[in-house]
Amino acid sequence: MDIEQFRKAGYQAIDRICDYYYTLQDKPVVSSVKPGYLRDSLPVDAPEAGEDFQEIADDYQKFIIPGLTHWQHPSFFAFFPTGCTFEGMLADLYASSTMNPGFNWACSPACTELEAVMMDWAAKLLGLSPEFLNTSGIGGGSIQSTASDSALIAVVAARSLYQRRHPSVPQSSLVIYTTTQTHSLGLKAGLILGLSVRALEVTWEDKFSLRGETLRKALEGDEKEGKKPFILLATVGTTSSGAIDNISEIGAVTKDYSDLWVHVDAAWAGVALSCPEHREPLHLNAINEYAHSFCTNFHKWGLTNFDTSTLWVRDRKYLTDALDVTPPFLRSAEGDAGTVIDYRNWHLSLGRRFRSLKLWFVLRSFGAGGFRDYIRRTINLNNLFASLVSASSVLSLMTAPSLALSVFRLDPKPESASLNSSKALSPETLNDLNRIYYARISARKDILLTQTVLNGAVCIRFAVGAARTEEVHIRGAYQLLGEEGRLALEEWRKAGQNGNV
Amino acid sequence: MDIEQFRKAGYQAIDRICDYYYTLQDKPVVSSVKPGYLRDSLPVDAPEAGEDFQEIADDYQKFIIPGLTHWQHPSFFAFFPTGCTFEGMLADLYASSTMNPGFNWACSPACTELEAVMMDWAAKLLGLSPEFLNTSGIGGGSIQSTASDSALIAVVAARSLYQRRHPSVPQSSLVIYTTTQTHSLGLKAGLILGLSVRALEVTWEDKFSLRGETLRKALEGDEKEGKKPFILLATVGTTSSGAIDNISEIGAVTKDYSDLWVHVDAAWAGVALSCPEHREPLHLNAINEYAHSFCTNFHKWGLTNFDTSTLWVRDRKYLTDALDVTPPFLRSAEGDAGTVIDYRNWHLSLGRRFRSLKLWFVLRSFGAGGFRDYIRRTINLNNLFASLVSASSVLSLMTAPSLALSVFRLDPKPESASLNSSKALSPETLNDLNRIYYARISARKDILLTQTVLNGAVCIRFAVGAARTEEVHIRGAYQLLGEEGRLALEEWRKAGQNGNV
Repeated sequence: MDIEQFRKAGYQAIDRICDYYYTLQDKPVVSSVKPGYLRDSLPVDAPEAGEDFQEIADDYQKFIIPGLTHWQHPSFFAFFPTGCTFEGMLADLYASSTMNPGFNWACSPACTELEAVMMDWAAKLLGLSPEFLNTSGIGGGSIQSTASDSALIAVVAARSLYQRRHPSVPQSSLVIYTTTQTHSLGLKAGLILGLSVRALEVTWEDKFSLRGETLRKALEGDEKEGKKPFILLATVGTTSSGAIDNISEIGAVTKDYSDLWVHVDAAWAGVALSCPEHREPLHLNAINEYAHSFCTNFHKWGLTNFDTSTLWVRDRKYLTDALDVTPPFLRSAEGDAGTVIDYRNWHLSLGRRFRSLKLWFVLRSFGAGGFRDYIRRTINLNNLFASLVSASSVLSLMTAPSLALSVFRLDPKPESASLNSSKALSPETLNDLNRIYYARISARKDILLTQTVLNGAVCIRFAVGAARTEEVHIRGAYQLLGEEGRLALEEWRKAGQNGNV
Repeated sequence: MDIEQFRKAGYQAIDRICDYYYTLQDKPVVSSVKPGYLRDSLPVDAPEAGEDFQEIADDYQKFIIPGLTHWQHPSFFAFFPTGCTFEGMLADLYASSTMNPGFNWACSPACTELEAVMMDWAAKLLGLSPEFLNTSGIGGGSIQSTASDSALIAVVAARSLYQRRHPSVPQSSLVIYTTTQTHSLGLKAGLILGLSVRALEVTWEDKFSLRGETLRKALEGDEKEGKKPFILLATVGTTSSGAIDNISEIGAVTKDYSDLWVHVDAAWAGVALSCPEHREPLHLNAINEYAHSFCTNFHKWGLTNFDTSTLWVRDRKYLTDALDVTPPFLRSAEGDAGTVIDYRNWHLSLGRRFRSLKLWFVLRSFGAGGFRDYIRRTINLNNLFASLVSASSVLSLMTAPSLALSVFRLDPKPESASLNSSKALSPETLNDLNRIYYARISARKDILLTQTVLNGAVCIRFAVGAARTEEVHIRGAYQLLGEEGRLALEEWRKAGQNGNV
């Protein structure tokens, strides 16, 4: 493809992306393809001779678009949102157009320097302590791929720090603390590193938040048994229910347990710190006082395209002491002199994409004000959904709405005509009912939600965040979910009459 | 930014990328910016109000482009090349435009399915055994971020397999084998996982290739000492000199040491397997017979934009046994039924970009024939460079050229007029001389090469691969490197007359 062919194909790509967004809301959210659909449609080998790009571009429309789940669809309420803005796309395009692997300063100064500045912009947008800024010269931030990577890096750095302080402690005594609500990244870090993971109990009464006393008791117990908890993966905004670990209480406990590294994973909720009114509920002061490392994913609820997991540490030496490998072919005059950051020593890999460009484009184009407006608008939309569910005769919220996430279930009130019974349902029956309910919802193609289990209760998550979601989509979703609830009740009742329940 | 504003900004981005490539060869390869240049140019905070995108796009040209090292410049011969094609850019743009995190089949079927098919296309292009194909249902391939990630995953899978077979062996006995020439990814995997790394010696006489006998002796010695080598990170095409570990001999040894996992890191050289004439020199048969895992980076010498590190394993269960974590919110009907691949269990993170699109666009647009043509053309260009150096009176090749990589140094023949001496130089003197020489080369902005050290000898690497490099650039580089060599000799001689050498 020569330059003029690229111009033509590029214009067409831009036009087709415009078409995609003009028609997005008319598409089903969920693909109807069956497993194996694509393999059946494609040749078994790469072609021997090159093909015309027009054919390739047309095949993208023909084969790929129908196999997509449309995460930017206004009726996408599953998982957490994934950031996708025109600004992010353009930044990805520009970054891809010069392709440098950014592993040290010299291999593209702009890449390292913009990342250092953008991490400071982002830190200040969120109200992080100056200690986390790259300008501090001690702490600092860098962009990782995912929150799993960020947590893994934190665990590696914490283990390395702990082992330097306590060289005689065997690795088999080390323990990673999480809670029962921590994202799978906790277990995965344990699997990868071959370390034990202990999930501390949290309760429904505490809204699944880790309390200081629970942590203290666990530390005391493990100390007696000779175990060495060296890091807590605390969460601000869990995936299941948006629970917020009590970082203030946790921080107070670590005054007596100074070996415990506190990593705060705010992968989803962290960007809400941009709004002053959410800072204290999300324990910003305690994060600033106690957290050794803090992560949020701008590629979730932060309008920035994947991958933009921002990770800050209070002391960059924790990372470089754990991860620095500098063979001769990676040495540079600037790196040797220590006047620049060589980001390769702040993460797992060597090469890295020019990801800070996305943050630059997004933060400038939206402005801090526009960024906060978007966060507040999505929270308001979720509050609307929660208020509708609260007034429903068949649906119930399972927890108070957390920012832009609600967790609910089908839970007919005894007086509900659909239930046709005045007795409260048993937990098992409610779970059966909600399995039927979720199967009905997930069979639909015009909306997408995901399920979860909270203390044994089968629940459904409703996460707002797609940039095109408006009030009309929330009201439409609520109506649809209510109807499916009534139909699920009917299905369940009929099954019962047939002796299947 | 609304859809029409995006169309305008998108067209402009395409036009500006066209301009970039029309003028690329007139730019210096290396940026002249000084550390801190960008921070001094940018505000200390994100703006409060959104800015016009035109201003942002203009600032990209004004502040970012001057701070780039131009890896696609035809006179870029440093590190290894990084793939960057118009096809790759367009695929990145399309992938970014719908942004799905691809962690399981249901969250975008096209994303998982295309990756499975593309990994099979790529495997067949390289001549890998059918056992590595996804269609085998046993082995399979997936796209990782970097060769460091791929190697780390291999080590985690190998450790997990070893520990299941030998549950009583403590982690502290485990050893990762590398060679003294292995990329820093070996040491980094050890650092991350807290495992010992033993670098086996390789010799100049063996062209820095790991031989079977060296491996056997190491295994015998470690067995006696109770150490448990569980993985060998073998390399086909080392970074320093393009050395090729003798996979055939290594494989034969593992017949007696069946616990040793053989990971073949062919990050750079692997794509040359697309050409039948390079298969045996690169030990393809032995890879197919013995390797547990095999990695090559299409984002290096394979015309595909970063990140596209392709990793194949002989048994996918090795990965999923080591990495599968499936909480309720990640369950899906298709995943539960086992009819689809959920790639999240094949790598370290959860989310992943839609990277297979790049391979699809590149392999179709170039065709297998066009891909091989590019590989052969770059090898021929390096052979031209090597033949010029061989005939030089001041430069010497340090090893036979390996594919598209030459390693050379300033090494004046005794009869050289510039040397003005008939005595051969000592190794220390030659190193001093080459430090002066490399300092001169790296002070230039119109060419970029990187240094290395081979068995104590300071050398310079010349890696061909930028898609726009032609014979004229090779001849120009040779002339420039010869002139700098003569100037370095003069500088050295003058310093000697002043008593500094």
